[in-house]
Amino acid sequence: MEKLTLIKVGGKIVEEADTLNRLLQDFAATDGYKVLVHGGGRSATKVASQLGIESKMVNGRRITDSDMLNVVTMVYGGLVNKRIVAGLQALNINALGLTGADMNIIRSEKRPVTDIDYGFVGDVKEVNADLLSTLIKQGIVPVLAPLTHDKKGNMLNTNADTIAGEAAKALAKYFDVTLMFCFEKKGVLLDENDDESVIPELSRDSFKRYVEAGIIQGGMIPKLENAYQAIDAGVKQVIITKASEIGKDCGTRIA
Amino acid sequence: MEKLTLIKVGGKIVEEADTLNRLLQDFAATDGYKVLVHGGGRSATKVASQLGIESKMVNGRRITDSDMLNVVTMVYGGLVNKRIVAGLQALNINALGLTGADMNIIRSEKRPVTDIDYGFVGDVKEVNADLLSTLIKQGIVPVLAPLTHDKKGNMLNTNADTIAGEAAKALAKYFDVTLMFCFEKKGVLLDENDDESVIPELSRDSFKRYVEAGIIQGGMIPKLENAYQAIDAGVKQVIITKASEIGKDCGTRIA
Repeated sequence: MEKLTLIKVGGKIVEEADTLNRLLQDFAATDGYKVLVHGGGRSATKVASQLGIESKMVNGRRITDSDMLNVVTMVYGGLVNKRIVAGLQALNINALGLTGADMNIIRSEKRPVTDIDYGFVGDVKEVNADLLSTLIKQGIVPVLAPLTHDKKGNMLNTNADTIAGEAAKALAKYFDVTLMFCFEKKGVLLDENDDESVIPELSRDSFKRYVEAGIIQGGMIPKLENAYQAIDAGVKQVIITKASEIGKDCGTRIA
Repeated sequence: MEKLTLIKVGGKIVEEADTLNRLLQDFAATDGYKVLVHGGGRSATKVASQLGIESKMVNGRRITDSDMLNVVTMVYGGLVNKRIVAGLQALNINALGLTGADMNIIRSEKRPVTDIDYGFVGDVKEVNADLLSTLIKQGIVPVLAPLTHDKKGNMLNTNADTIAGEAAKALAKYFDVTLMFCFEKKGVLLDENDDESVIPELSRDSFKRYVEAGIIQGGMIPKLENAYQAIDAGVKQVIITKASEIGKDCGTRIA
């Protein structure tokens, strides 16, 4: 099978002109088929605030009432997505901005209300990668916003890491997929105070031992659990690195 | 060649839930290949106002400074476009929301500054209908927002009637195109005070005579001139009608 690199970049990188331009150049220079998944939370919070809408977060997740759903639909699907698409087109990358509603590529269901009502937030149920893979093979580079739909007419706010993971799994039927999560560090660190202490390869056994030893902790644990789930579902490798290191064969490799 | 219907609907219809739902049902029921082009000016003005950004209009055209460009990118490309796409998906229409930047389908150039500086407004230079027509033949229904890009990394605000006309002309190489402009009246009227006085067919000669006689005037003149230009460029027919009359074989037909 042919190779495909799916890169997920967080909000901050795509929301500042300098880091965005650098990222788009590195992404454009990545060989082979590729997909970009972006966030945009900081811009959403900023626009919401300017509109007098309060951003409520629980456990780091945004509570999405109907006003906030309009904001994220505007900001993720419009402002951030189209800025990236236009930027890539200028670099001769034939980008196509997509939400899960477009061509019904990602159907989700509104998260059930338990102790917490997250509001209009979608849990991914189905990725239709057939048409997407056809487009990719025609030279199109999908740029996915963190939005899905319920196939009943409603957009739903959806975590960008989840979008990346689910899209990578679905595309693994058609490509040898490398899933790359970019965050603020160069990789998973042995010592959180030493940015250069990147663990180059992380086996499942070492992961367990590092968690038991308290070396890997906090938000990195679910991130790595998702990575292993992606591997179990057919993704060839997952790389955790910094956006500025794309293409440098750095980061932590999970396979 | 196979038939394709390209329907342009203005802002008001797509910006109110009731009229939007009705429109999407009528559009979904339209036979054969189809494309929807939408506006969204009222929502843009509303969001801009909530953000404390003043909407400046000259000759009915919006002046688009960089703040306003962000607003229209959010509102047209995000809010309005994705609401339509999600609504069509619920009706089992495989909609795909697009701006001109997506797959580089419409490249424009920033309008030169003359007496008036319209700001970040694009004049259409090139429609790449090749990939678009392939997608349409695969069952995809494009939903076009009134935004283009300059292929240099910038989005540009672009008149929805122009997008519709230019897309119709470019698609005329691949399909027998019917271009339908929806506005607030049932068609071109013989008597502006009688909504039922629709001229069913308008030849070029009658158009000239009606203009000379003052029966056709104002904003309808450029609209009809655009229609005849589209016919000259290969579009099979242009129909001017009301959104609620889609599929009813009403309106003014120009061929």
